[in-house]
Amino acid sequence: MSPLPTFADVQAAARRLEGVTIRTPLLENERVNRALGGRLFIKAECLQRTGSFKLRGAYNFLAAMTDADRAKGVVGWSSGNHAQGLAEAARLMGVKATIVMPSDAPALKVANTRASGAEVILYDRVKESREAIGHGIAEKTGATIVPPYDHPWILTGQGTAGIEIAEQAKAAGVTLDAVAAPCSGGGLATGVALGVQGLSPTTAVHAGEPAGFDDLARSLASGTKQKNDKLSGSICDALLAPTPGDVTFPLAQKVLGPGLVVSDDEVLDAMELAFREFKLVVEPGGAVALAAALTGKLLVKGRAVAVVCSGGNVDHETFKRALGRAKA
Amino acid sequence: MSPLPTFADVQAAARRLEGVTIRTPLLENERVNRALGGRLFIKAECLQRTGSFKLRGAYNFLAAMTDADRAKGVVGWSSGNHAQGLAEAARLMGVKATIVMPSDAPALKVANTRASGAEVILYDRVKESREAIGHGIAEKTGATIVPPYDHPWILTGQGTAGIEIAEQAKAAGVTLDAVAAPCSGGGLATGVALGVQGLSPTTAVHAGEPAGFDDLARSLASGTKQKNDKLSGSICDALLAPTPGDVTFPLAQKVLGPGLVVSDDEVLDAMELAFREFKLVVEPGGAVALAAALTGKLLVKGRAVAVVCSGGNVDHETFKRALGRAKA
Repeated sequence: MSPLPTFADVQAAARRLEGVTIRTPLLENERVNRALGGRLFIKAECLQRTGSFKLRGAYNFLAAMTDADRAKGVVGWSSGNHAQGLAEAARLMGVKATIVMPSDAPALKVANTRASGAEVILYDRVKESREAIGHGIAEKTGATIVPPYDHPWILTGQGTAGIEIAEQAKAAGVTLDAVAAPCSGGGLATGVALGVQGLSPTTAVHAGEPAGFDDLARSLASGTKQKNDKLSGSICDALLAPTPGDVTFPLAQKVLGPGLVVSDDEVLDAMELAFREFKLVVEPGGAVALAAALTGKLLVKGRAVAVVCSGGNVDHETFKRALGRAKA
Repeated sequence: MSPLPTFADVQAAARRLEGVTIRTPLLENERVNRALGGRLFIKAECLQRTGSFKLRGAYNFLAAMTDADRAKGVVGWSSGNHAQGLAEAARLMGVKATIVMPSDAPALKVANTRASGAEVILYDRVKESREAIGHGIAEKTGATIVPPYDHPWILTGQGTAGIEIAEQAKAAGVTLDAVAAPCSGGGLATGVALGVQGLSPTTAVHAGEPAGFDDLARSLASGTKQKNDKLSGSICDALLAPTPGDVTFPLAQKVLGPGLVVSDDEVLDAMELAFREFKLVVEPGGAVALAAALTGKLLVKGRAVAVVCSGGNVDHETFKRALGRAKA
């Protein structure tokens, strides 16, 4: 087994991303703090280029590749944020990107991926395998496969958000008791833990997951990798990975505290609060850590806590559903 | 006539606001830039504490007052953003605030103003005068009236956003051709012009207004103060001041370019784009300058332009109306 990624790897990623990714703000709200009886900070990665944190890992991966490999292009598969992040990273570095997307992916996400100059190959979710298509392209062209989370270059790229959180909290005169980040395959949560704890070793870091897709929480509790029963059925379309990654899980066991699990309704309420109090557009999967803080599953009372709102790529109808749950 | 406020006054305000107001981000979007053929930056003042830029001017005003005056409290009238900004500034400085608000103001805005510790006095829009009530309180208690825009301390406080825009553009390696800000009484637009042009003298600054409430645009064109025909009837509830201020207009004549006027539908489209591409919640009045840039009334093609999105205090129904105009 290769050694686990370290804080130094996240620092190296931060140097690669300088001037490329936005240092997204760490926001706080007096009214919310009073209601929770503590200090809650939001790391607003929905404001990141491409509308999610995914550009961090994808760009770091491409920047870490050799020139010879970059010349042969990259290939990836995703129906959402990784597609857009990878396509934009490739555009910025002048690398040819091929993205395999389901033919029923939202038209806007396909259009956005194409707008970054990527070649999009549509596949039939029922009859075809995106992995098989992606591997076929890689074998034929020599392109490098860029996985969505299960690679050291990806997770340490995402971890640069953790360095920023620790630095921004310090600048605000705060030592964070805990940080939480949304979790699908665990790239963001483990990376953020490395980044935060490298600068603030007493800060606990937790991964948030939607109910029914809490494979990491159950894996951490049991000590062995668990699978979800379902592959779909949560509003959190970005957080449906079936099981923790081979790279991310051993690291998660070392750096993460117990998992946090929230319901779809709690996620919709968190999206509404982000709209009303923080003026942020957060997608369902991006709001799970915030939902954990608002429901007390992640304790804020008497503490200082930061949550990553990891993306804002949400369609009108889903957003209206969140707004429909409370009166403003 | 007292001398016009200067860049040095905005610099003094910036020192007072340090550590109090958020340095809101200056955001850019590749897709929007490609569509417009230039570089468009958004100064996201909707992310400011209290959900709008108004805290800047209110806090600067209170910080510039004498201790003796502060001890007697402050009074203001507003149905919206100035109420919340003034109430929060007073809370932060430990000053008693009384805010006169219409009895039909949105319940949430009244609750938010009270949550900052202000005493809210409700009045009947039809039968009573808020100015009379406010002046009555000031005479009885010795409280200082804090006007919403027509005072040097207010407009130079708002102008600190202009200093930030110029500094942030410079850090991005950009010399801005133009900046635009929403305009009701002209405090934000004139202040921003002082702040921006103090650091970037070649940058033109424009005020945006809703159609039918373009008193400043017509006043600038004619050289004399013009009034709006109506007092209500635009979706931009924050931009309905009837005529330019006595302090702001002479300054506007000196520092602002021609006014920009947009329709309610153009404002709703701008709110939808801010949601979809920038992941920001912008209220109607906060989106007029963005609307001017998107419609070509403020030219972006071949240029670098920044617009202030000045607030995000919008109710669910109005936001849903904006989302209803296009498919995401």
